[in-house]
Order: sequence, then C-alpha cells, then structure tokens
Amino acid sequence: MNARMSPAPSSPASAGTTLLVLDADPPPRLGRLTGRVRVEHADDTTLAEKLPHADALLVWDFTSHAVRRAWPGEGPRPRWVHTASAGVDHLMCPELAASETVVTNARGVFDQPIAEYVAALVLAMAKDLPRTLDLQREREWRHRESRRVAGTRACVVGSGPIGRAIARTLKALDITTALVGRTPRTGIHGPAELDRLMARADWVVCAAPLTAETRGMFDARRFGMMQPSARFVNVGRGQLVVEAALADALSKRWIAGAALDVFEHEPLGPDSPLWRVPDLIVSPHMSGDTVGWRDELSAQFLELFDRWAAGRPLRNVVDKERGYVPGH
Amino acid sequence: MNARMSPAPSSPASAGTTLLVLDADPPPRLGRLTGRVRVEHADDTTLAEKLPHADALLVWDFTSHAVRRAWPGEGPRPRWVHTASAGVDHLMCPELAASETVVTNARGVFDQPIAEYVAALVLAMAKDLPRTLDLQREREWRHRESRRVAGTRACVVGSGPIGRAIARTLKALDITTALVGRTPRTGIHGPAELDRLMARADWVVCAAPLTAETRGMFDARRFGMMQPSARFVNVGRGQLVVEAALADALSKRWIAGAALDVFEHEPLGPDSPLWRVPDLIVSPHMSGDTVGWRDELSAQFLELFDRWAAGRPLRNVVDKERGYVPGH
Repeated sequence: MNARMSPAPSSPASAGTTLLVLDADPPPRLGRLTGRVRVEHADDTTLAEKLPHADALLVWDFTSHAVRRAWPGEGPRPRWVHTASAGVDHLMCPELAASETVVTNARGVFDQPIAEYVAALVLAMAKDLPRTLDLQREREWRHRESRRVAGTRACVVGSGPIGRAIARTLKALDITTALVGRTPRTGIHGPAELDRLMARADWVVCAAPLTAETRGMFDARRFGMMQPSARFVNVGRGQLVVEAALADALSKRWIAGAALDVFEHEPLGPDSPLWRVPDLIVSPHMSGDTVGWRDELSAQFLELFDRWAAGRPLRNVVDKERGYVPGH
Repeated sequence: MNARMSPAPSSPASAGTTLLVLDADPPPRLGRLTGRVRVEHADDTTLAEKLPHADALLVWDFTSHAVRRAWPGEGPRPRWVHTASAGVDHLMCPELAASETVVTNARGVFDQPIAEYVAALVLAMAKDLPRTLDLQREREWRHRESRRVAGTRACVVGSGPIGRAIARTLKALDITTALVGRTPRTGIHGPAELDRLMARADWVVCAAPLTAETRGMFDARRFGMMQPSARFVNVGRGQLVVEAALADALSKRWIAGAALDVFEHEPLGPDSPLWRVPDLIVSPHMSGDTVGWRDELSAQFLELFDRWAAGRPLRNVVDKERGYVPGH
C-alpha cells in the first residue's frame, strides 16, 4: 500500500508523494515544495497516463477539460484535486463526484477583482463609454446624456463569495441590489423569485456556478421579461447563457445592452458572430485576473498543501454533487 | 427708479420684472413663471443690447462666453445672475466681480453624476476596457491581466461638492482617497501638500474650479512627478491642464493613462491632436449630464427664483472673487 492509498488525515506527504500539476504555464513558487514532494507535470495528452501515479493533482490550467476526460479511466486516482479556479465545471464528472477524492477550489481569490470588473462594466454602460470611444476614434464631438447608477436596481444571480462581493460593490455605488441563490436565506432570494427580480432590474448580473440546474438558465424567456432599458452581465460561465438568445434579444432591442466575459466556447473564434452583436461588450475571460493573481493562486494552493501534508482538514472543499463550495 | 434698481431683499418680482434667459435651447418648465415675470431670450449677439433691461439673468447656455464680453458695457445691470453650471469661469469678469450683482450656480446637481463618471473612468482604465473594446473590434481574443482598484490611492483636487462626491465614491470602492482644496481643514489637505500627494497617487482627479490660481496647475512639472503607473482624470475645466504637457507625458510614458472630459477649446475640433494621444480617453464634456439633468437644473433655478421673488436670501451664492461657492 503506497502513501497514495492511505486515508488523508493520517498520511502526511513525504518525498515519496507525487504531486501532479496540470499546466500549460507552470505555476510560480512551487519550488517551495522541493524535497517535500515529487512534482510532476502533465498536459492534456499525458494526464490519463500519469493520473494513477499521483497522490494529489493541481489543476493549474483551468481552461483544460482533460481531468473530466481522463478521470473515468483505469487505475488508482489522486486523493486530492485542487483547481486554481472558482468554478469546478471543467473537471467534474460522475466518477469524480462518486469517488473519495476531495476537490478544493480557489474560493476567495477572485471575489474582489470580479466585483470591480462588474462595477466597471455597469458604469461603462451607464455612462455610454463604448460609444464615447467609438466617437473618439472618429474624432467626433457628440455630447450625449448618460445614466446615473445610484438608485437603479440590480439582480445578482449566484450567492457564493463572488456574487456576494459583486452585491457589496454595487450597493456601495448606491445601486439597490438583490442577490439570488439556490437556497433562500437571510439576504438571499431563492430561485422562485428570480423572474420577478429580473423583470424589475436595471442590471442582471450572472455569477452562478455552472451545474445541471443552472445550465442555459438565461434564455429567450428570461431575456424577454427584462426591461428594454436593462442590461445583462455574465462573469460566471458561458454555458449559463443561451448565447443565440442573448444576441437575438440585443438585436431586437428587448434589452439595451450586455457584457460577456465568458463564453460557451473559449477562446471565442474570430468567426463568432458574438464579436459584432450590437451593444454587446465581449471580453476574454479576464474579469478575475488582476496583476499578481497567479502568485495569489499559488500561495493559496501552498497553504492548502501544507494542511493536506500535515493531515489537517482542507479548506474550500467543493460539494461535488452541487458543484460548488457550500457557504453561508 | 425701476424694480431692477431696488435692493434685492425688498423687491419681489412682479409682472413688470424682466428675466433674461441666455440660451441656445430654451430651458424646460419656465412656463411656470408665466404672468409672474416677463421672460425674454437673448443669444450671444443680442445679449449686450438686452442686458440693461434685465432684472435677472439666467445663463442657461453655459457654453457661452457672452456674459463676460457683454457685462463691462454701458447701462444698468441685472441684480441677479444664475448660471446652470457648477463653474462660473465662463461668465466672470472684473466688472461683474466688483458689482453688487449676486451670482448663483447649479451647485449640487452634478455632484453624484460626475462622481459616478469618474468612477467609470477609473475602473475602465484599471480593467483595460478601452483595449478590450479595440480587440473586440479586431475579433481578437487576447487575455490580459488587469488591476485592482481596492487598495490603490487617489488624490482628488477640488474640495467643493463635486470633489467631495468623487472622494466618497472612490472611497466606497476601497480606494484610499485624499482631497485637496484651497483651504486646509478637517479631511481636506491644503495646496502645499498637493505635490506630495500627487507623487504617490495611482489616480489624480481634477475637479477644481477654474480661477487665477488654478489655471494651468497641471503642467509638465506635476505630470513629471506622478508615478509611471498613475493615471490622470480631468472633469473640472480644460484650462486647469496644460494640454500639450499632458499629451507629452502620455507619449513619453511618464504616466500610464488619462481621461479628459473638458478641454481648453470646446468643442474639440476634428483636427485636434488630442483625439489620438496614446492612452488618453476623450469625452465631450458630458460627465455631469445624466438623463433629466435639464429638468433638474430648471427646477433648481425655479426654486431660487421663488426665493429671489419673495425677497428671501438666495442659496448657492458664488464668492465672485474666489470664483466658486465657499463651502465647509
């Protein structure tokens, strides 16, 4: 029985323990583990072969779907998987969910950056900044009236740390903000109230995890119930939104504008019609990635590694059935 | 002796009183004055001729410099001048300053809109939004790292209601914000501290009134002392900034970016080199103008008019020597 097979609490990592790192660009700072653990790297093509020899797996390349593909294969599996992302949709599969393996995520690192990014988009749309930049390019001075955000209403969908940080930031701008989560509780509305809240919102912001229940939740019906002056922002996952329905809603002016930072297929190819949908801001999945983010993710992983190696309970443990870290 | 010559407190307006309105587009809601006062309109060419017959003057077209040109002329002058703007630089002249005429401004109407506009610019620059929109136009997916604003430092120059609203809004985004005004007092730094505060700021925001002391205050020396990563925003008046020095500072990368909403010459002509300065956002003097602003300005004027007509003290009275409404 090798170390990998031992139950986590009684098996501190040793030089014989293997940490497998799935990465395109290796993470910074892992040198700190030298001598404590054997670090091996894998890519999409080698992951399946290396997985049975790993005690722990760090999914550093969170754009890869290799874990979901390789996991159901033959042989032993790592006891611990950490992903350097908030969402776990890219790695979760029924076999991993049913296994004993503990999955942790990067809860906390992206909250404030994403909240600021959403505020940037909301304010940019209220102040008609994209049009200002277009007119600047044309060297055209054209005064327009813009909108106040104070006193408007937002509906933030997703009540995890990111959604809550977004709500806090929007409230700081005097936007009346409602938060919607899977489980209604103090300060958080349940899914049954979503339609009512969306129908009166000036801003609908999606920061939900991608799960079986949330996939495609923003569809033609929901865009159809929004106000014509309202705008939609997605910083969650692309598959939460029916992209064709959003493009249609914008083209028909059912809603006034939208901003997407995440897409069903990433990277968005040059042929995607989404680049040119009127009043749609397209950004390349960057909302949480502020200078130093890789260092922060690395530091967070190392802290979790120390706990794991010492046999202490991990933090940020994902509920694998629900697909996110349950919070309060 | 006509009504115009009487001291303000003892001379309620009557049907014989003349309100002269300097406007390109007439203000809304003035119909409420029907029967209470004679309303006449003037433009840049007729103002000089009509001024001697006016008891009060509403400067609705705040882009006009006609008052400053016409005021020193012959004949009686209105007892009260109200401008539908926060700044009074476009109408002030030594003769008006030395006269008995009371000048009031639109203090309060623009505070929150301008504060939000500054927040929009700061966040857009931190999140590299102009570049995102450029790349969208090119249909190019290029991930970049952006900046957090929380924990950065701002220096807001101008401690009137607009500067204070900007400071409040930036602080709500967890930006450490110092406010600089002409007179140091609790929570407000004096001019002697400006250089030190600018040198360590990530954001320098100008919301100062244009006066003899402030004209050209943002010059090559001051841009030279800013951090290379810092950015500059002007929502005050164009003449506060030496535009060529700012363009030079941006081109030489002394500072990382800037946004100007106001210019020495407005509207900015298509030949202005400012449209194409790298990392400069140009907008057409719109920061305070949110939907309904003309109604708000009109309602504010009517409230002041009621006070004036009743012989009660006016609000928003400008210190004509200083060039702004002194505050606390």
